Amino acid sequence: MAHVTAPTSPRTRLTPDQRRTQLLELGVRLLGTRSLEELSIDVLAEEAGISRGLMYHYFGGKQGFFEAVVQHAADDLYARTAPPDDGEPLERLLASITGYVDYVVANQPGYRSLVTAAKGSNDALREIYETTFRALADRFFTTDTGTYDLPDTPAVRLLVHAWQAMVEDLVLTWCATPAGLSRDDLVHVITTSLPALVDTLP
Amino acid sequence: MAHVTAPTSPRTRLTPDQRRTQLLELGVRLLGTRSLEELSIDVLAEEAGISRGLMYHYFGGKQGFFEAVVQHAADDLYARTAPPDDGEPLERLLASITGYVDYVVANQPGYRSLVTAAKGSNDALREIYETTFRALADRFFTTDTGTYDLPDTPAVRLLVHAWQAMVEDLVLTWCATPAGLSRDDLVHVITTSLPALVDTLP
Repeated sequence: MAHVTAPTSPRTRLTPDQRRTQLLELGVRLLGTRSLEELSIDVLAEEAGISRGLMYHYFGGKQGFFEAVVQHAADDLYARTAPPDDGEPLERLLASITGYVDYVVANQPGYRSLVTAAKGSNDALREIYETTFRALADRFFTTDTGTYDLPDTPAVRLLVHAWQAMVEDLVLTWCATPAGLSRDDLVHVITTSLPALVDTLP
Repeated sequence: MAHVTAPTSPRTRLTPDQRRTQLLELGVRLLGTRSLEELSIDVLAEEAGISRGLMYHYFGGKQGFFEAVVQHAADDLYARTAPPDDGEPLERLLASITGYVDYVVANQPGYRSLVTAAKGSNDALREIYETTFRALADRFFTTDTGTYDLPDTPAVRLLVHAWQAMVEDLVLTWCATPAGLSRDDLVHVITTSLPALVDTLP
């Protein structure tokens, strides 16, 4: 009987948490070819080969599913842009920004869908997006993981937020139209523009 | 009989074009207290005191109405940020940017609704928004109305687009949280950040 009860596919061995994570990763992947609104619970249930009822069990409905997908992608982005523990501040900033550019390049259509969804009129998705923006900005101000020597004032925080909006637009536009800039040129512009922007404060 | 057939309110004398414009201005104004999705044809018809059928006659449906409202607001923004014909390039840029900041401050909730709508997944609204972005950017490159001496290259265009995204975020965030910056400080940051950004190009 052993080979009969043994899993016939890897997923039968997953814990509920692992299964949920697998569904979210599928959700993020599917965003590469459709907008969040087009990614219904039905589409995901069909792609994952599970029932609609189980999807509701995992995510409690469409809004819960949207939030979980956006949160999962945001956590992934945060992890992939973590600066290395050691090195000079500028090197660490370069590594983090290179991680961001590479992430967007590798996940471009999905990232675009997520940004579009997060900037729309759904407050919960906007909140996840803004929380991630803040967590990424915190890296500039936390001494032990700090990548850059910026004074932590409200005005600098305001500029960092605007710089993040600029970087997001810059990288997404560059993916579509590189305008003669290499990846390293882009990373250089992003990295040096932050102190240049902060220097404009009166 | 003269006083009976005379208009009882100014709107009875309007041409269809004027009436349409008046409805669009009402639409933009109503965006101050609701999102574009919440601003249905029914809401506008009720506020304007006209029939739903007439609204459809003017705008051909909900999508046409959304597009007309966003286009009207975009045209208004473009007109209000026109640089003066005379003066030094930096003065003219300052005047144009001050016009933008004042426009956003005066129309903050409505502008936020428009930006949210334009960045969502509605392609036609995104296109209006992007066309306006381009037209505003063109001002930096058109010699006869030029406000700033930037080389017209694809890389500089890429940076101007990203700078516009930054400025939009900066002004909207500043409206909510001024962070100790006066309006003039903000205009200074916006104005000086563009050449600083272009200077980061390798």
